[in-house]
Amino acid sequence: MMIVMQAQATESEVRAVLEAITHHGFQPHVSRGEERVVIGVVGEARHAEPDAFLRLPGVARVVPLSHPYKLASREFQAEDRTVWVGDVPIGGQHEVVFIAGPCSVESRSQLLETAHAVKEAGARMLRGGAFKPRTSPYSFQGLGEKGLELLAEAREATGLPVVTEVMSPEQVSLVSRYADMLQIGARNMQNYALLRAAGISGMPILLKRGMSATLDELLLAAEYLLSSSNENVVLCERGIRTFETATRNTTDINAIPALKARTSLPVLLDPSHSTGHWAYVTPVARAAIAAGADGLIVEVHPRPAEALSDGAQSLKPERFARLVAEAQAVAQALGRATLQEMPYVAAD
Amino acid sequence: MMIVMQAQATESEVRAVLEAITHHGFQPHVSRGEERVVIGVVGEARHAEPDAFLRLPGVARVVPLSHPYKLASREFQAEDRTVWVGDVPIGGQHEVVFIAGPCSVESRSQLLETAHAVKEAGARMLRGGAFKPRTSPYSFQGLGEKGLELLAEAREATGLPVVTEVMSPEQVSLVSRYADMLQIGARNMQNYALLRAAGISGMPILLKRGMSATLDELLLAAEYLLSSSNENVVLCERGIRTFETATRNTTDINAIPALKARTSLPVLLDPSHSTGHWAYVTPVARAAIAAGADGLIVEVHPRPAEALSDGAQSLKPERFARLVAEAQAVAQALGRATLQEMPYVAAD
Amino acid sequence: MMIVMQAQATESEVRAVLEAITHHGFQPHVSRGEERVVIGVVGEARHAEPDAFLRLPGVARVVPLSHPYKLASREFQAEDRTVWVGDVPIGGQHEVVFIAGPCSVESRSQLLETAHAVKEAGARMLRGGAFKPRTSPYSFQGLGEKGLELLAEAREATGLPVVTEVMSPEQVSLVSRYADMLQIGARNMQNYALLRAAGISGMPILLKRGMSATLDELLLAAEYLLSSSNENVVLCERGIRTFETATRNTTDINAIPALKARTSLPVLLDPSHSTGHWAYVTPVARAAIAAGADGLIVEVHPRPAEALSDGAQSLKPERFARLVAEAQAVAQALGRATLQEMPYVAAD
Amino acid sequence: MMIVMQAQATESEVRAVLEAITHHGFQPHVSRGEERVVIGVVGEARHAEPDAFLRLPGVARVVPLSHPYKLASREFQAEDRTVWVGDVPIGGQHEVVFIAGPCSVESRSQLLETAHAVKEAGARMLRGGAFKPRTSPYSFQGLGEKGLELLAEAREATGLPVVTEVMSPEQVSLVSRYADMLQIGARNMQNYALLRAAGISGMPILLKRGMSATLDELLLAAEYLLSSSNENVVLCERGIRTFETATRNTTDINAIPALKARTSLPVLLDPSHSTGHWAYVTPVARAAIAAGADGLIVEVHPRPAEALSDGAQSLKPERFARLVAEAQAVAQALGRATLQEMPYVAAD
Repeated sequence: MMIVMQAQATESEVRAVLEAITHHGFQPHVSRGEERVVIGVVGEARHAEPDAFLRLPGVARVVPLSHPYKLASREFQAEDRTVWVGDVPIGGQHEVVFIAGPCSVESRSQLLETAHAVKEAGARMLRGGAFKPRTSPYSFQGLGEKGLELLAEAREATGLPVVTEVMSPEQVSLVSRYADMLQIGARNMQNYALLRAAGISGMPILLKRGMSATLDELLLAAEYLLSSSNENVVLCERGIRTFETATRNTTDINAIPALKARTSLPVLLDPSHSTGHWAYVTPVARAAIAAGADGLIVEVHPRPAEALSDGAQSLKPERFARLVAEAQAVAQALGRATLQEMPYVAAD
Repeated sequence: MMIVMQAQATESEVRAVLEAITHHGFQPHVSRGEERVVIGVVGEARHAEPDAFLRLPGVARVVPLSHPYKLASREFQAEDRTVWVGDVPIGGQHEVVFIAGPCSVESRSQLLETAHAVKEAGARMLRGGAFKPRTSPYSFQGLGEKGLELLAEAREATGLPVVTEVMSPEQVSLVSRYADMLQIGARNMQNYALLRAAGISGMPILLKRGMSATLDELLLAAEYLLSSSNENVVLCERGIRTFETATRNTTDINAIPALKARTSLPVLLDPSHSTGHWAYVTPVARAAIAAGADGLIVEVHPRPAEALSDGAQSLKPERFARLVAEAQAVAQALGRATLQEMPYVAAD
Repeated sequence: MMIVMQAQATESEVRAVLEAITHHGFQPHVSRGEERVVIGVVGEARHAEPDAFLRLPGVARVVPLSHPYKLASREFQAEDRTVWVGDVPIGGQHEVVFIAGPCSVESRSQLLETAHAVKEAGARMLRGGAFKPRTSPYSFQGLGEKGLELLAEAREATGLPVVTEVMSPEQVSLVSRYADMLQIGARNMQNYALLRAAGISGMPILLKRGMSATLDELLLAAEYLLSSSNENVVLCERGIRTFETATRNTTDINAIPALKARTSLPVLLDPSHSTGHWAYVTPVARAAIAAGADGLIVEVHPRPAEALSDGAQSLKPERFARLVAEAQAVAQALGRATLQEMPYVAAD
Repeated sequence: MMIVMQAQATESEVRAVLEAITHHGFQPHVSRGEERVVIGVVGEARHAEPDAFLRLPGVARVVPLSHPYKLASREFQAEDRTVWVGDVPIGGQHEVVFIAGPCSVESRSQLLETAHAVKEAGARMLRGGAFKPRTSPYSFQGLGEKGLELLAEAREATGLPVVTEVMSPEQVSLVSRYADMLQIGARNMQNYALLRAAGISGMPILLKRGMSATLDELLLAAEYLLSSSNENVVLCERGIRTFETATRNTTDINAIPALKARTSLPVLLDPSHSTGHWAYVTPVARAAIAAGADGLIVEVHPRPAEALSDGAQSLKPERFARLVAEAQAVAQALGRATLQEMPYVAAD
C-alpha cells in the first residue's frame, strides 16, 4: 500500500501518518518527491483497510499495490487448473467444453428431449434450472425439488453430469444430492452466506459474474470459495450491464484474456445471457472460443416460443449443433495448446 | 402488451401470432399501419412472458404496456404511505427522518458513544452492522450476534429504534429478535430467498437499491416483500455504479422524484455510500431533502480513522449535527407539505 | 508518477526502468518493499507519458500522483472564481444565477414571449439554440444565423445576456458577434479544434460535461480553454449516461461537490437534460442548489407540446417561476456564504 | 409511432391526442384495451418528434415503431455492401482486411519501418495519426500536415492505401489531398459539422463508434454521411465506456452481429483501443473475426516503449504478424461465405 500525501501536507501531518502506520504494526517507507511525499506501508497484511489512512489529515490517496485476492491469483498458482465434474474436465489443456440445456426445467419430456438432443450435438454437461431467480414475483419460479429429480433422471438417461443453480445456503445440501456442480448465479455473486455454504460443500462450483461486478470483485467472490478449501471453481462471464440497450447485456469479451492473466481458474462464457438474443448467440460463442475461453454454457429449448423463461435467447437443438461445430472449428484452427503459451501479463 | 410485427412480416406470420395469443387465453387486437402490423394483447395477466411471442416468426418487438409491478405502484395506492418503526414514522406528511450510526458495530463503547451523539444531533433511529457483507473474505465481517446484543443495548440506552442488515434467510428470525427494522443490502436486492423470508417476517424493511438495479427492478424487489403481505417497506437509493471513478458510486438524485412518481412507498437516501467520501456526504444529503426524499441514513463514527470499515465515508458526530441542521433548514424552506402536492407524472 | 514493479520482477528489469527514467530526463527514487519494488519519478513534467514506462518488462502499473490538469485546479487558484457575462456574475460569493429559455429558437414570437416570461420569473440570462446538434439528420437543425439575430433582438428587448451553442470552429466568430457567452455542448466537449477556437475568442464559455466524460476529462477540456488564456470558463453538469432508462440521463449530483473540491471555476446544473422529464426538473434543480451549484440553466417553452425539440423536458413559464422561487428558498436557507466555507478536500 | 395513454386517462384527453395527431397531418388509429387506450400514428414521417405527443395530458409513453435511420438500414439495402479504398475492398464477400500502423506518425523512419513491417505481416492498409485528439492539451498533438506528407510517402513506398483521422470540417480538404480514407474518431462521432463536411467530400469514411454511443446513434451518425450521398461508409467498434476498469474500454463484441443485423455496411473492430492493453489485443482480434467482423484496425509500433502515444496498447510487428495469422486461421475455419448466410434478425 502506498499513501500519497497532498502537495500541501505539513510535516506534522506526515509524522502523524508515520505514527499511524507503526501503530497498526507495519513499517513506513518515506519517499520525498519535489511536489509531495509518498509513504510505502511495508509488512502490510492483505486485509489492512486503506480507509484507516485515508481519513488522516493531509492524505490525498491510498494506492493498493497487491491484488485484493490471493488464492485465486495466477501468482499463487501459475499453472492452468482443471476442474473435474464427474468425468468431464474443464480448463487446463483439455478441450473446450459445451454445457447446454433449458433455462428452466419445465417437464419430464421437455428435459429429456433436450438432454438427448444436446448430448448428440456435442454437449458434455447438462444445465437446467430448478430454482429460478426471477426479477418479478409473478414469473415462473421453477419446479423446485421436482426439477432436481428430473435433472437426476436426465443424467441417468444420458450420462451427462448436471449443473443447476442454488439460491440460498439452506438449499446447498438439497441441490448437492441431485447435481454434479452448483451454479452461483449473477445476482448472488456477492451473497456471502451462499458463497460460504457452497464453498464448504466441496462441490464443483460454476460462479457467474455479477452484472455490475468488476473482475476484481469476481475474483474476490472466488476467493470466498477457495478460502473455504474448495478448489473446484469455474468462472463464467455472462454479460455486464451497460448503457447499450440493443442487446440484453454487453458481452465483456475482454474479460476472457483479462481473467486468464489474473487467474489460472477455468473461464467459461454464457452467450445466451450475455446477448439475450438467439441470433447473436452463435457468433458470440465462436468469439469466446477465439478469445481463449475454456467452454460455453448455452440455453437450448426444443420449442423456444413455448419456453416458460428466456425463450428469446434459447437456441433450437439444430442451431446448437451448428454452434458446437463452428466453435470447435475455431478451437481447432487455433490449437488449444497454442493459446496457453501466450505470455499473459501480470495484472496490477 | 403490444406485439410489433416486422415491416416485411407475411400474412401467415400475423395469423400465427393471433393464434398464439388466443392459445394463451388472451384476445388479439390488430392495428394495420402503413408500414407494419401491431397487435394488442387484451386480457393479459401481468405475468405473461413477452418471450413467448418474441420468438414467433415475423415479430420485431414486444412492448409491455403496464408496469411489471402492481402492489408497489402509485396506481395501486395513490396516497403516500407511512411506515412506522417503533414510534418513528417514515414517509407520508411526516417530517424527514435521520437514521445514523456506525457502519459496523465494533465495540460497546464505540456504539454507545455514537448512539448518544447521533441522538443528540437529531437522529431518530440508530443504524449499525452486525453481519457485514464484505467484498473480501479477509475484511472484518462484523461481530454477529454479539453486535445485535449491543444494538439492543444501545436502543435501551437511547430510545432509538434500530435498523441492521440481514444477509440470509436463516438470519431473519435471529435479527428480528433484536432489531426494529431489517435492512436488505444492495448486494442482496435480488436475493429472492431472503426477500421472501424478510417479507414473511412482517418486520419493517429498509430495501436498498442494488448498485446496478433499475428503478423497475427495485420496485419488483419491493413487490416480493409486498406480495408476502408485508407493507412496511422503505426504499433507499444508495448510489449506482457508473463509469465515473471520482466518487465511490454515483448518487442517482433523479431516482428520488422518479420513484415518487411510481410509488407511494417512502424513499430515503444513503449519502455515505452514494458518495463514498465524507466531504461530499453533507452537500448530497441536503440535495436529497431538496429533491423530496423522506429521510437520510448516514454513517457516523466518533473516530473515522480508526473505523474497521467505511472510515472514508463516515462523518464525525459534530459534522453529522451540522448535516442535520442544514438538511432541516432545506426541508423547512420548502415545506414538506408543499412537496407532496407536486403533480407527479404517471410513469410508463 | 510512481512505477509499481511486478512482484516477480528481476533486478535487471528494475535497472532497465531506472535507466529509462534517467533517459527521459527525470530522477528515479527507489523503494524496496517486502513484496515488490516501487520507483518514484522525480522532476516529471505534467505531460510525461505513463505508457512509456508501462511497456517496460517487469512493470505492473504506473500511478500518476498529480492531477492531469493544472490551470483548472483549485491548487492553482484556491479562491472561487467569478465569470462575468455582461453585468451578470456567475460563481464566487454571488447569488445563484438562473439561465432560461427555449431549447431551440423557433420564431420571433416564441423567443420574445419566452424571454420576457423568464426574465419576469427571475432569470438573469437567456438561453436558446440557433445551431442545434441533433442525433438524427432528419430532425430540426435550428434557424442558424436567423436564430442568432432573434437572440440579439431578445437581448435588446429584455436586457438579458445571451448564451447559445457553437458547433464548429468556423462558427465561433459568427456566434460571438451575436451572443454574450458561447456554449460548448456535451457532444463537443472533446472537440479539440472547437475548444481551441473558443478559447482564443476570449468569450465567456459555458462548457458542458460530455455524457460519458469523467470529471478529470471535463477539467482537461477546461484546461484547453484556460491554456488559450481564456479564464472565463463555467462548467455545467448535464447528466451522464448510465444503465438506468427511467430518466433520459442520470444527474450526477456528486459532481457538484466533487468539482468544487477540484476547481474554483463556477459550476452549474442543467436539470432539463439531466432528467429529460419536466416533472423531475424542479426537484433536481432544488437539489443542485442544495448541493452547492452556482446556478441553473433550464429549458422553458410557452407551449412545450408544440416545441420543435426537447418538449418533454421543457417547463412552462409558470412552472419555471416556481422553480426559481423554490431554488432561491433553498439558497437562502443555507446561506450561499456558508457553503463556501466548507473545507473542500484535496482531490487525488 | 404508438401513443400509450395512461390507465386513468380521460376520454377528453384521448380526444385531444387524436386532434393533435390530425393537426400534425397524420391519421390516428385507436385500440381500446381493458386497462388503457393505445393510439397508432399512421402516415408519420420519420422525423415526427415524439416529444410533441409526450407532453399532452394523459399520455404515458410514445413508442417508435421504426428505426430512426433509413439509408443505413438493412431494410433499405439488404445485400452486404463493399467499400473500396483504392484497390482494397472492405466488406461484402471479400476477405477480412487488416489495417495497421502507428497510433501517431512520429518520424519518417518510424513510419516507413512500420509500414513495411505491417505490409509484410499481411496488412492491406496503413493507419497513422497526423492530427491527434488528445485528452490533455499538454500531450503530443501530432505532426499535422508534415505527418500527412509522411503518410503519402509511406503509401508510395509500400502501395498501402492510407487512413488517417480528420478532426474538423476545415481539415477535410487538406487531409483528403493526402489520404485514401478519412477517419472520424470516437470523440467526433456526433460532431455534425464534421460529419457533413466528410459526407460531402465523397471520400471513403471510417466511422468510429463514440465511447458511449448506442448502436442506433452510430447508425444515425452514418445516416448523416449517407444522406450527403456518400455511400463509402465503414463502421468501427472501438470499445465502450463501462464501469469496468481492468481494461481501458469494454469491447462490445455483441455489436458485431447486432450491427450486421441492422445494416449492410461493413463493420471493423479496433482491438487496440477496445482493450487498451497489448496482451489482450490478439485474443480480442481473433474474437472479432469469429463474430463476423469484416476486418481489424490495429496499432503497431516498432518500439512501443518509445511511442509518443498509446504505447501500452501497440503491438510490435512480430506480434502483429502472429495476430494476422491467427485471425486468418479463424476466418478460414469458419469460411467467410458461411457467415453471410446467417439469417440475421430484423432489428426492432
